[in-house]
Amino acid sequence: MENYSKINQDIKTIQNEMFDLMSELYPICRSITGEGVRKSLNIIKNHINLTINEVPSGTKVFDWEVPKEWNITDAYIIAPNGGKIIDFKKSNLHVVGYSIPIKKKIQLEELKKHIHTIPSQPDIIPYITSYYNEDWGFCMSHNQLNELSTGEYEICIDSSLKNGSLSFGEYLIKGEIEEEFLLTCYICHPSLCNDNLSGVVLLTFLAKYLENLNTKYSYRFLFIPETIGAITWLNLNENKVKKIKGGLVATCVGDSGESTYKKTRRGNSKIDQIVSHVLQYSKTNYTIVDYYPYGSDERQFCSPGFNLPVGSLMRTPYRKFLEYHNSGDNLDFIKKESLGDSFRKYLESILIFDQDEKFLNTNPKCEPQLGKRGLYRNVGIMRSDANTDDVEQRELAIFWILNLSDGNNSLLDIAKKSEMPFRIIFETAVQLYKNKLLKQTEST
Amino acid sequence: MENYSKINQDIKTIQNEMFDLMSELYPICRSITGEGVRKSLNIIKNHINLTINEVPSGTKVFDWEVPKEWNITDAYIIAPNGGKIIDFKKSNLHVVGYSIPIKKKIQLEELKKHIHTIPSQPDIIPYITSYYNEDWGFCMSHNQLNELSTGEYEICIDSSLKNGSLSFGEYLIKGEIEEEFLLTCYICHPSLCNDNLSGVVLLTFLAKYLENLNTKYSYRFLFIPETIGAITWLNLNENKVKKIKGGLVATCVGDSGESTYKKTRRGNSKIDQIVSHVLQYSKTNYTIVDYYPYGSDERQFCSPGFNLPVGSLMRTPYRKFLEYHNSGDNLDFIKKESLGDSFRKYLESILIFDQDEKFLNTNPKCEPQLGKRGLYRNVGIMRSDANTDDVEQRELAIFWILNLSDGNNSLLDIAKKSEMPFRIIFETAVQLYKNKLLKQTEST
Amino acid sequence: MENYSKINQDIKTIQNEMFDLMSELYPICRSITGEGVRKSLNIIKNHINLTINEVPSGTKVFDWEVPKEWNITDAYIIAPNGGKIIDFKKSNLHVVGYSIPIKKKIQLEELKKHIHTIPSQPDIIPYITSYYNEDWGFCMSHNQLNELSTGEYEICIDSSLKNGSLSFGEYLIKGEIEEEFLLTCYICHPSLCNDNLSGVVLLTFLAKYLENLNTKYSYRFLFIPETIGAITWLNLNENKVKKIKGGLVATCVGDSGESTYKKTRRGNSKIDQIVSHVLQYSKTNYTIVDYYPYGSDERQFCSPGFNLPVGSLMRTPYRKFLEYHNSGDNLDFIKKESLGDSFRKYLESILIFDQDEKFLNTNPKCEPQLGKRGLYRNVGIMRSDANTDDVEQRELAIFWILNLSDGNNSLLDIAKKSEMPFRIIFETAVQLYKNKLLKQTEST
Repeated sequence: MENYSKINQDIKTIQNEMFDLMSELYPICRSITGEGVRKSLNIIKNHINLTINEVPSGTKVFDWEVPKEWNITDAYIIAPNGGKIIDFKKSNLHVVGYSIPIKKKIQLEELKKHIHTIPSQPDIIPYITSYYNEDWGFCMSHNQLNELSTGEYEICIDSSLKNGSLSFGEYLIKGEIEEEFLLTCYICHPSLCNDNLSGVVLLTFLAKYLENLNTKYSYRFLFIPETIGAITWLNLNENKVKKIKGGLVATCVGDSGESTYKKTRRGNSKIDQIVSHVLQYSKTNYTIVDYYPYGSDERQFCSPGFNLPVGSLMRTPYRKFLEYHNSGDNLDFIKKESLGDSFRKYLESILIFDQDEKFLNTNPKCEPQLGKRGLYRNVGIMRSDANTDDVEQRELAIFWILNLSDGNNSLLDIAKKSEMPFRIIFETAVQLYKNKLLKQTEST
Repeated sequence: MENYSKINQDIKTIQNEMFDLMSELYPICRSITGEGVRKSLNIIKNHINLTINEVPSGTKVFDWEVPKEWNITDAYIIAPNGGKIIDFKKSNLHVVGYSIPIKKKIQLEELKKHIHTIPSQPDIIPYITSYYNEDWGFCMSHNQLNELSTGEYEICIDSSLKNGSLSFGEYLIKGEIEEEFLLTCYICHPSLCNDNLSGVVLLTFLAKYLENLNTKYSYRFLFIPETIGAITWLNLNENKVKKIKGGLVATCVGDSGESTYKKTRRGNSKIDQIVSHVLQYSKTNYTIVDYYPYGSDERQFCSPGFNLPVGSLMRTPYRKFLEYHNSGDNLDFIKKESLGDSFRKYLESILIFDQDEKFLNTNPKCEPQLGKRGLYRNVGIMRSDANTDDVEQRELAIFWILNLSDGNNSLLDIAKKSEMPFRIIFETAVQLYKNKLLKQTEST
Repeated sequence: MENYSKINQDIKTIQNEMFDLMSELYPICRSITGEGVRKSLNIIKNHINLTINEVPSGTKVFDWEVPKEWNITDAYIIAPNGGKIIDFKKSNLHVVGYSIPIKKKIQLEELKKHIHTIPSQPDIIPYITSYYNEDWGFCMSHNQLNELSTGEYEICIDSSLKNGSLSFGEYLIKGEIEEEFLLTCYICHPSLCNDNLSGVVLLTFLAKYLENLNTKYSYRFLFIPETIGAITWLNLNENKVKKIKGGLVATCVGDSGESTYKKTRRGNSKIDQIVSHVLQYSKTNYTIVDYYPYGSDERQFCSPGFNLPVGSLMRTPYRKFLEYHNSGDNLDFIKKESLGDSFRKYLESILIFDQDEKFLNTNPKCEPQLGKRGLYRNVGIMRSDANTDDVEQRELAIFWILNLSDGNNSLLDIAKKSEMPFRIIFETAVQLYKNKLLKQTEST
């Protein structure tokens, strides 16, 4: 991996491509299993060479079991006056996820027990699921509910719930070493954009970008159903997880809010330090929060038996935006520039993860003579009015790197202590290494 | 010990009972030895089955020696005009504690050398002692001193200072285990209420309350003269102190001021964390201060050779209230509600001390499936407008407990990290334990 | 070393003597080598019995080589109109340090390439050197440069650059033990006062003062050229450096600014704690900054291969004052009171360094009885209105010392934890030691 110059190219192109992919995936009805997931994974496969895995229903995965596969082709409600007032084909949010099939006539009072609305947001359709309790239900706006007249309704959910499999996508970019960085998103939500098509498209294009770089670490991308997918993957790959040296859960990365980083359970792992550093130099506002054991798939990766160094870099976190889990989380809620900014922060974090290293000063006793190597000004012009310009900043970077390269500090540690961006420290270290003033430590 | 429900019962009853006991003890002339102490201990014995110990004068206790026993029956000053201007029977503060017997006629100028007043509080009688320097003296208000006319005064202190013993009370409530929690107060002050009859009555009723619970730890209560009593007890029980896992010195717990917690010398022992937690959730203002090596008997318990985890939970600390060590520290200075609030905080601290434990998550790899055990909502209604109600708080408590029960965190640690009250964490942990999602660690 | 009383004597005398010595040294043209350095060292030798060392040009010192010796007798520029516009004899700043000899006629345009000014301070002559790049140049005010008319100028630098030696001064005051405290300054700047004749005169008089005390530690004083001198000394004394237990680089100690302490690279070494304590109780404003790997000779002493606990106590740091490295840094820029205040802070720091020790409480179990040893008031007058007067402060000091003298805390640690000045703690500890309530630990 050479330098940072590619990061600033093409972000605008990529953010448009991310939005286009999101628009393509948006209408599909996804759930934790079923054809909607497979269709979505195959669309992603047009961009990266994803492996699509199928795990049979009933497979034991730790304390859980892979559920039956759910599929749905249609659903509707016909009012007493004959009008179709709910049509699954218009919005897949109208049906409670994992609803069992049903087709019958029913009185309004009975129907109401199966209808979900958001009274405080009366125009909005909520997103509801019932994965592990066989049930059925419809979602609609509260306004629509209020308009329903008494009488007999014809309802239909043309779904199936039977043995099948859980599908997930996986893509590994092999680096120089086997140690891995994990990037994961969930593909189980129907027509919802920020949560979490934004994570899906970000990881798709990040993988596409990274596969063209020569990385030191290997990078593994997961496109899985939330919770049960993470549990399934961890169960199938229990012996691999010790290779995971860092990771990020990509969710809610497309709204117009500020970046929020949720730390790993360890609290001060390398990825925590890196994302903090990237955000600090991002010239954007941001929030960093400690780990909490609810949220997305970091719950599984950071469960005490694994405790992997996996954090989550979001914008407005799940449940903190009004459009969360309802029909307001649509394409209009997404800003392309936010997708682009999130992409940049993910990529910068990965570059630091890949490039950070400990060096050893080859002349630890006193400073080496920089002047004779052309690394320092020859004429000693030191003045109180001298500007801390780029040349001088790079000279100061030399002093910091040489002083701290004692085997205890990585380049990131030095960037933090010197209060300089990693990029300056990294590029200066490369120069010192070429001048044999630094050498590599035995192992990194 | 089952639950917290009893705490909120009967606090009003208990605070009245505490005040009544204080009123009964108030008139007695106590000192570091003597009949006043014995009489007081016997009154306490009406409430709890106290053992009263006697340690002979002259017994060597570390660098000290148990002093002679002091008793006093009367004292007065008769003015030149024949009027009795000082009468011990009206206030035992009028005589300097440990005054040697004297009866003679004396000129005012000579008498004045033995009179103590507080010029800045001219209506108030100070409390003065001279335990280790044989001397005598009277205390009176500064106004009274100013009114004394010259002439010959008849003075009398009908006291005795001879070999006898030092008396102290001790009460042990045995728990499941031998490890102990120490609760100590001093019974050496004459008619003074906040310092320290408040501590005496609080511990009496706390012992009475605790003896009806089935505690894990054993609870030891001491009613001792300050300093020499603590030194004596530690000398006699040197081999027992390793069992003491926590403790509190009860003093100044009845005034209307805010709670003040003085930490143990260790600074972050379990009792320090517990009292901080109790105060944090007490909905009252409070102050927490670091240990300092002067004050009350924590000086001995926290001396470097013992360094026991003993703190002190007070209201306004000694020396910080104007009524300290003078006749202003009387029954009017005490608020029953303050006694009750102090009682509650002591009891809550003890309950946490007794109930805190480390558990192990029995399913450390990924989350266990809570739904199939009825521990989680079946229908996934997660909305941005959902209130963090009690049900949800208990669900979050489940996640915190499972995530952090890795052998490193006790329930109190989890309460702190989750920013939830211990009570919620404890009750939720009991539920998880019953569901076999938690197991006990080998040793706690 | 007995007590602090001498510190407060004679500061006024010493600050005048320091200023007089500075005035004597000011006109001499010093550089990193040459007769100016030797002449300066010999003047210092009038005050302290300095050893003057000579290290031959060409000696390899770590990554460096001792340079050729530079000497200069005269330099000037004669204008086309015959007027001498630059005269080295009027200010040695006019010549770029280490300028090679030159004598020729030259057109203005060519000459200008060798002239240095400070456009933003047009009245001021800058201080410029070219130690490791053979070159020549003149420095003048920007106003003077602007007035130069075209034509042919006669220029002359009557210097020599040939094999010789690097000179430095060293002075060791032997204490009871071989472990050392290092005090170092640089003597390579020509007519510049704050940077760094202030450091030179401070160390001269500090040595003179210390040699009359009986110190526990040995004190080593270095008067060396900056950078190359430190590198040379470290190279010659590589086997001695393990004896250095603390140190200070004395520079910029005479201006009217507030004190600034730059910490050692270790960040919390004993000298860091000491100087912080001295500044805290100095009743002056001050700043404490973390170590950074550029600046003065702490760069070499704190290079990773040595990492010595050497900090730097300055006033306004180098480069932070407008007069830095230019003709404004003259005798008028120095305040005698600042020299005196800096002297006091250095001396107080050294006294603490020398006197700090760990004691052990000989009665660790409970408090010893202070009263019977006359260390505590006999009559227990404790009142809420009692002032924390000096007597009481010393009683509290007793409690702090006894409580914390458990083998883990030195007197300085106790001073910090008790929030009392070291002096009170030290003097009280001496009293307790005399009373056999403290004993020395096996090793300090």
